[in-house]
Amino acid sequence: MKQIEQHASFGGSQEVWQHASSTLGVDMDFAVYLPPQARQGPCPVLYWLSGLTCNEQNFITKAGAQGYAAKHGVILVAPDSSPRGEGVADDEAYDLGQGAGFYLNATREPWAKHYRMYDYITQELPALVDAHFPTTTARGISGHSMGGHGALVIALRNPGMFRSVSAFSPVVAPSQVPWGEKAFGAYLGEDHDEWMQWDATALVANASERLPLLVDQGDADNFLDEQLRPQLLQQACEAAGHPLTLRMQPGYDHSYYFIASFIGEHIAHHAKAMKG
Amino acid sequence: MKQIEQHASFGGSQEVWQHASSTLGVDMDFAVYLPPQARQGPCPVLYWLSGLTCNEQNFITKAGAQGYAAKHGVILVAPDSSPRGEGVADDEAYDLGQGAGFYLNATREPWAKHYRMYDYITQELPALVDAHFPTTTARGISGHSMGGHGALVIALRNPGMFRSVSAFSPVVAPSQVPWGEKAFGAYLGEDHDEWMQWDATALVANASERLPLLVDQGDADNFLDEQLRPQLLQQACEAAGHPLTLRMQPGYDHSYYFIASFIGEHIAHHAKAMKG
Repeated sequence: MKQIEQHASFGGSQEVWQHASSTLGVDMDFAVYLPPQARQGPCPVLYWLSGLTCNEQNFITKAGAQGYAAKHGVILVAPDSSPRGEGVADDEAYDLGQGAGFYLNATREPWAKHYRMYDYITQELPALVDAHFPTTTARGISGHSMGGHGALVIALRNPGMFRSVSAFSPVVAPSQVPWGEKAFGAYLGEDHDEWMQWDATALVANASERLPLLVDQGDADNFLDEQLRPQLLQQACEAAGHPLTLRMQPGYDHSYYFIASFIGEHIAHHAKAMKG
Repeated sequence: MKQIEQHASFGGSQEVWQHASSTLGVDMDFAVYLPPQARQGPCPVLYWLSGLTCNEQNFITKAGAQGYAAKHGVILVAPDSSPRGEGVADDEAYDLGQGAGFYLNATREPWAKHYRMYDYITQELPALVDAHFPTTTARGISGHSMGGHGALVIALRNPGMFRSVSAFSPVVAPSQVPWGEKAFGAYLGEDHDEWMQWDATALVANASERLPLLVDQGDADNFLDEQLRPQLLQQACEAAGHPLTLRMQPGYDHSYYFIASFIGEHIAHHAKAMKG
């Protein structure tokens, strides 16, 4: 582990670390915000999964989350959204390959070797974080767009691992929208039973734990009707009796201006669950 | 005036506008944040001047200022830091030419034609803002690094124009540090009497209005000893009896993480003065 950035921020420390990921077979950067409370004792950890094209920088520079994390005593961890670098398969499109890992384990070539973001986020990264930073066992997970998909899927597939889950503008039903169809076809092939294992709207039907979902969605989001379609998750939750708070936010778009406007409420929500 | 961006943000609207600047002879972009209160009636305006290399995007994407502006009902205006484009003189270095206007009126070639940021900030931009947005007559000004220099100089040279002034990590004495010596030599020539008209530490000695200065400076800032030297302003203020609050913030660097950590206190300071 090598520290590559460190900045004082709201009385705490915004850091970026690099490590050789055995899961992904590449060096990975991830961001950690340590609130001032972390100097006194362990703090719960909120994992943030970013959207298409993002790396570990977007959330920490644009979301304005550190002030709320400092207020609530929450550690923030924001990984890159995919493996990167020479030797890692890629595609010219922004929505496949590097910057578009979709938080799953790819089974098809040329992706299967490095594209194992699911194992990275659920196993290697939390083990690393817990070994190097003053964490409690309480974890929450959130994310944006592709990362909102990742947060929902990872929480639903791992009952007991997270105390809380939320998402901004998530891809709730990747099996039914162009971004997901393209990525799942490439990474997983055409077995749609396999796709359902990575689709929050499908997973919610059989979730063994009824962890409440908090979802914020801007109604002026350009991707709303084609790629996001939160009503599909809403219908699945209603059918399954799964608790969902879906908030349609009037006038908000898909940008970090939207995330910044509501990240304080999300962090408060996670802090309450993680400390409860 | 052409709107080129609009995002809902904290109940208000983050916008970017473009206009043909007669002062600068180029199209200029500037950012405006309208708090929710601006839909009900006029609001005071805080002008933000950015540092070297920055355009109108840096402050609005990284400072996390909108939430505080929404809380206090303050309009934020963030212009570009220089004229830009083909036909505008430039230099390969980051600290001269495009992105490095130093908020002065250049008198030397090849700069004199376009580099008139002082006139732009003090005349054309506020007239434009007042004509197009619901502003009161109360104005404040702040900025970072080169923009902190700009805020202090512009406030000191224009008594009565601003109710409040503050700065983050300002270049307080450009006549005495490498960034300023290089820029002033290029833009103004070697007449040091002229330099003194653009140097906050020099101007404070003869200020006709004792507008209090609020300055935050990180003590882990890499530019502190060579380029910023806030003690020079402190000594000048003490000698002149000019009110200065200089806060050395332990552990903070020159980045937007520093600005984000204290912009809430600055906006509260400006709001109090502008509404008082």
